[in-house]
Formats: sequence, structure tokens, C-alpha cells
Amino acid sequence: MRRSSSKSRIEQGQLTPKLQKFLAESKDRDPFLVVDVDVVEQNYRELRRLLPHARVYYAIKANPAPEILRRLRSLGSNFDTASAGEIEQCLSLGITPDRISFGNTIKKKRDIAWAFDKGVRLYAFDSLCELEKLAEVAPGSQVFCRVLMECEGAEWPLSRKFGCAPHMAADLLVKARALGLDPYGISFHVGSQQTDLNQWDKAVAQVSQMFTVLQQHDVELRMVNLGGGFPARYRSDVPMLEAYAQAIGNAMTKHFGNNLPDMIIEPGRGLVGDAGVIQAEVVLISEKDYGDDRRWVYLDIGKFSGLAETMDEAIKYRIVTPHDGGPTGPVALAGPSCDSADILYEKTDYHLPLALRVGDKVQILSTGAYTTTYSSVGFNGFPPLKSYCI
Amino acid sequence: MRRSSSKSRIEQGQLTPKLQKFLAESKDRDPFLVVDVDVVEQNYRELRRLLPHARVYYAIKANPAPEILRRLRSLGSNFDTASAGEIEQCLSLGITPDRISFGNTIKKKRDIAWAFDKGVRLYAFDSLCELEKLAEVAPGSQVFCRVLMECEGAEWPLSRKFGCAPHMAADLLVKARALGLDPYGISFHVGSQQTDLNQWDKAVAQVSQMFTVLQQHDVELRMVNLGGGFPARYRSDVPMLEAYAQAIGNAMTKHFGNNLPDMIIEPGRGLVGDAGVIQAEVVLISEKDYGDDRRWVYLDIGKFSGLAETMDEAIKYRIVTPHDGGPTGPVALAGPSCDSADILYEKTDYHLPLALRVGDKVQILSTGAYTTTYSSVGFNGFPPLKSYCI
Repeated sequence: MRRSSSKSRIEQGQLTPKLQKFLAESKDRDPFLVVDVDVVEQNYRELRRLLPHARVYYAIKANPAPEILRRLRSLGSNFDTASAGEIEQCLSLGITPDRISFGNTIKKKRDIAWAFDKGVRLYAFDSLCELEKLAEVAPGSQVFCRVLMECEGAEWPLSRKFGCAPHMAADLLVKARALGLDPYGISFHVGSQQTDLNQWDKAVAQVSQMFTVLQQHDVELRMVNLGGGFPARYRSDVPMLEAYAQAIGNAMTKHFGNNLPDMIIEPGRGLVGDAGVIQAEVVLISEKDYGDDRRWVYLDIGKFSGLAETMDEAIKYRIVTPHDGGPTGPVALAGPSCDSADILYEKTDYHLPLALRVGDKVQILSTGAYTTTYSSVGFNGFPPLKSYCI
Repeated sequence: MRRSSSKSRIEQGQLTPKLQKFLAESKDRDPFLVVDVDVVEQNYRELRRLLPHARVYYAIKANPAPEILRRLRSLGSNFDTASAGEIEQCLSLGITPDRISFGNTIKKKRDIAWAFDKGVRLYAFDSLCELEKLAEVAPGSQVFCRVLMECEGAEWPLSRKFGCAPHMAADLLVKARALGLDPYGISFHVGSQQTDLNQWDKAVAQVSQMFTVLQQHDVELRMVNLGGGFPARYRSDVPMLEAYAQAIGNAMTKHFGNNLPDMIIEPGRGLVGDAGVIQAEVVLISEKDYGDDRRWVYLDIGKFSGLAETMDEAIKYRIVTPHDGGPTGPVALAGPSCDSADILYEKTDYHLPLALRVGDKVQILSTGAYTTTYSSVGFNGFPPLKSYCI
């Protein structure tokens, strides 16, 4: 059994004074997310300091709040977008198209044409089909091919949805040049919240081999896109950002020597995850039978109103309560909807204070990424997650 | 290998002429759902005909479109709601509070108080904690206790989130009377899309025993709430509605004899599932390596924009393409977002025509329930699922 006493004080302390003040003064009755944009800035500066050679493309999908985009724009960040909608939002905030990557490998031709017309010149692909669309409506653009890597150790594991086999990627990059595109580089993703740092070395080794193969076809790749995978702090300890940066730096130097290519990183969670906290309310505490050793605790936020990443109990958020420090007991945690799939943690071993009561406010930490935009438009009549940036 | 030729013609024929005309004339470029409200009416009338003794409470969460609620209101339906938001919508459409059940077992006290103030007098609960809230702010109301049943055979399996052990439920119903509430009955749920009809008999037998036990405490229960679990037609064949009705009727007669209690059913999917069809577009078709025997087909709708029930590949929708009848090959199906979890079917054996091309429109059948409201507010910058009622 995990004793929460000492740990919880540390967790409480992780909220910035600004966040603590906001939470203390909040009169909100519905659950909400609040993001301290200064923490986003700190995370950005830290990443720049640790990986000075890498260009940062913020993965907007993690949290597209205008205040976050504006702050990162002013800091000089670039932006990784998934759709015409995200590009439009960037442009509307004064982000110039030369700082935008259309990083989704799945794009409608008309959306590529629209983005090209707006001035976007950097595109991802992972298939012949997509390459042909790009050649037709985005001629001359820089393109990079996403390679399928086997990933282990990621909390939110990647499937085979993105990327293609390295030898196919090499052929496609040769073909890109033949089609009038600029074969710029290779991207890969070691998995969101990747905790096994050796994965970076294995992946960079493969990419470096591809650079060599392509040179033999007179194609000079100039860029490695290392994707995301930078951690936020959830319930388990993760290696610190320094260790990540060192793993990446070592891998790049080991496999590319002094001839380092451009490097792109696409942090989303790593910039905004820790910067946000959700406040929710305990709606119900119950047991299913007499003598149950585990309580069921129901919150007013669930899988369909912001906490989608608890799918398969993948992301294990830390939870702060007003009673931390006192004795705890095991709980199952669920959301408020009538959907039996709306359970946050039933298999994971969560403990909460025995003193927890209906009406208590709890804080769900490191929820700045992948929460607001995941929330449903109104499943079960519950409104989407409110969001504040301070 | 499944040959789709003959099957697909049947599937095409299942779209009503109204739906076919709408799809043929549509100029929409984004994915959308269209629901034929006349089919909802047919389903309602059929259910009333087959289970004339049961009061229908439409589970609004399945699809809260105003046109559907208005039609069901005019047909005399009652409404099962999950939240204050859903109750407010009902009231705004002229549905009187005596036709509304607040059927969620997880309610904030202030929401119960609000509903009581509006005139709602029928409430679900499954715990002492919830019962005490009801006694305090909804005195004298009819309450029913949800019992935890072991369910097998449901496509969307239920967890232990809802309900409590039968002997605990009996104690709580005795307590309800002591607290000044009206212990009206018992509810259970055999699982959404339940295909094993014996589950009804097992459940009704247990409920009938509880009626007897409570009589010994001078509590006369008067109602059995059979929940939902009525099927829509997805990829696998399901017993027809007649068989369901017969299973329920037989079980009730066998276990209650001539002394039938009030019966409530809460169909959602069973009323609107088959009434709707989603039209989507093929965005990309690719392979991951040379010689792959399976194509990846990417649509412009995915798990986060309406098809949430493909979670764990639980609901297997039928898909109609312009090339049905021709030779097919195996596919994995995925949505358009940059999220690796946004895969519809990777393990399920899906086949689509080899002639399928990027830009083709496909129809996803029986998508009238649990699609629009599940869709995210804008994950990856994609807009929520559009919806039409005709």
C-alpha cells in the first residue's frame, strides 16, 4: 500500500504560486483546467538550453489555447500542425507560414493545396499516395518521411498507424526528388512519454544509415525530426529532461559525428503537460457490497470530458486532495457519465484518503496536455472542459 | 475471407429512400451524420407494439438532437436523462417533468435539487451516499435502485461502475422508505447490444426474488426497470427485436406471474442506431512495407470525431463503398488525427474493395447512436461531427 503523506506535500508544492492562488480564489462549480503560461515558457527555455541545435515545433494538438500559442510565438517557437484548422489558428495569431509544419501524414489534397496557398512549405508523409498529393499541389516543398520504429517503454504506446518501413521510406525520398519536391529529411517517434532512453540511440542509428543509403542515390538529406516523446510528470517517476537531452545529443553525435543535420523536435506534452492542473469535484463515494475493501470514487470529470488519455489506464495522473497526509485506502475512480466505459482507474492501484467526502475539490496534476480538445461536445449533457490560461 | 458482394447490396438497400436521396444530393465536404427521424418513429412504434406493457424512457444520451426528442415527445415517449443539462434540454422542448427520469446514479446534490425544483420526481441510485442526497433534496420522490448483474454476451460490456449487490440494494430500498422516499423499484442493465437472451431470464429471476424479500419488510416494490440493451445492426447478426421482446415477456411472466409490476425500458441505441448513417471520405490508402497483404485506409472521421465506440474495436460498423460487389482485400481502418490511438479497426478482420480510391465517399451504417455527442470539441483542429435530421 502506498502511503501518500510525504509524497502529497511534494505534489502540492509543485503547483506554482500563481496556480495556487487561482485555485484558492476560484468560484467555478464545473471542472476546469488552468494553465500557467509562465511554466510553458520555462519548459520551452529549458528545452532550448538543453538542445540548442534543435528547432522546436510545438505540437499544437496538445493544447491549442491562444495564450499558449502567442507566448510560444513571441519566444521564437515553430509550430507542428495536424490540420487546416490548426494552421488557420496559427495564421490568425500572426504566426508566419515559414514557422509552420503540416506534420500530419494523413491530409486531404484540398487541405494541402490550401496550406500551400497560405505559404506553408514543410510537409510530412509516409506513403506514395501522400507523396503524389504533395507533388501535385505543393510543388517544391520540403518533405520529410516518417519511418516506422519499433518502440518499447512508452506509456502511450504507438501503433503501426504512422510511418513506413525504412527501406520503403528511402525509395520514397528518392522519388520525392523525381517528383519535384525537396527531400528534406526523416522523422520518427519513439512514443509519447517514452521512458527507455536507449530507444533514441536505436532510432538515430537507423536514421543515420538511411542518410548513407540515400547519399548513394545522390540525395542529401539535411534534417532529422525527432518527434516528441518528452515527458510530463504523471504518477510514475520519469527521467528528467536533462537525461533526455543527453540521450538525444549522444545518439546524434555518435551516429552523425561532426556532420550534424538540422534537428527538429515536436514537444507537446513536454511543454504544456506540467503547466496545467484540472480541478474537479467528488460527486459520489460508494461501495458495491458490504465489506468491499475498495471504494468507488466518482468525479465530475471523466474519459469523455477531458481525461481521454486514461484510455486503457495509460496515463496515470497524480491526484491531490484536501486530506492528503491522512490514512488512505484503495479506490476505483470513475467519471460522471452513464457510460460504463467512463472509468479512469479500475485496475491501477490508486489510493485516496479515507477522509475524502462528497463535494471535496481535488486537483489532477500535469493535465495541461491532451485534455481540453479531447473533451466531447456534450456527451451525457455535460459541457466541454473549461480552460483558463494565466 | 468474407466476400462482400451480395452482402453489400443488402446493406445499401437498408438505407431509406429519404436517406439515399439526402446522401446523393449532399455537397458536404466534411463528414456528417444524417438521421431519418421516421425510422426512429418506426422503431418506437415497433417497441411499443412488442412490449405494450413497458413504458419507454428514451436514453437521450444516445442522440439528443431536438428533432428526435420532439418526434418522440409527440409519440408519447418518456425520457431517461443523465444530467441537469439533458433535463434542461427536455424542458426547453416542452417535455413535462412527469415524463423525465433522472437515471444517472451519479448526481451532484445541487443538480438533484434543481431537478426536483423543476418537477422531476423519478430518480435512480445505487448507494447509500446517493440515497441520502435524494432524501435531503428530493423528498417523497420515487426512487429505484440499480442492481449489479453479471453480464455476458454484450458487445459493449458493462463494468462494475453501476449498481450494487442485490442484498445491499434491498437494504437500501428499505432505508429509502425510512428516509421519506418512495421505494419504487429496481433497475438493471444486461449490457448494451446484449445478444445472449438468457441474460434477461437470469436477471428478472433475481429481481423477482428481491420483490419477495422486500415484501417481508413491508416494502411493496411496483416497478422493474429493464434498462437498455436493445440492439442496432452492426456487422454481426443480432437476434431481432421480436426475440428480445419475447425473452423479456417470458421472463417477466415466468417470474412475476399475473402480478406484473410496472415496466420501464430505456432504449437508446435500439431507437436511433439504425436510423442514422455517417458519410465520410477516404483520405489516404497506404501500405507500411512492400508486399504487405493489408492496406491502411484512413478516413476523415475517427475515434475522436464521432466513432468513440470503436474503442477496443467493440462496435463493428458496416461500411458501404462505391465499389461494393468487386473483389476485396484486408484493411486496417484509422481516423485522420495525429493520435496513434485513433484507429478504428486493426485487429478486426475488415475487408474493403481493392478499387477503393482516395476521395471516395463511404457510408458507415447504424451510426445514429453514440456518435455526435461523443465527438471532441476540436481534437487536432478537426471540427465536431455535423448532424442532420430529416
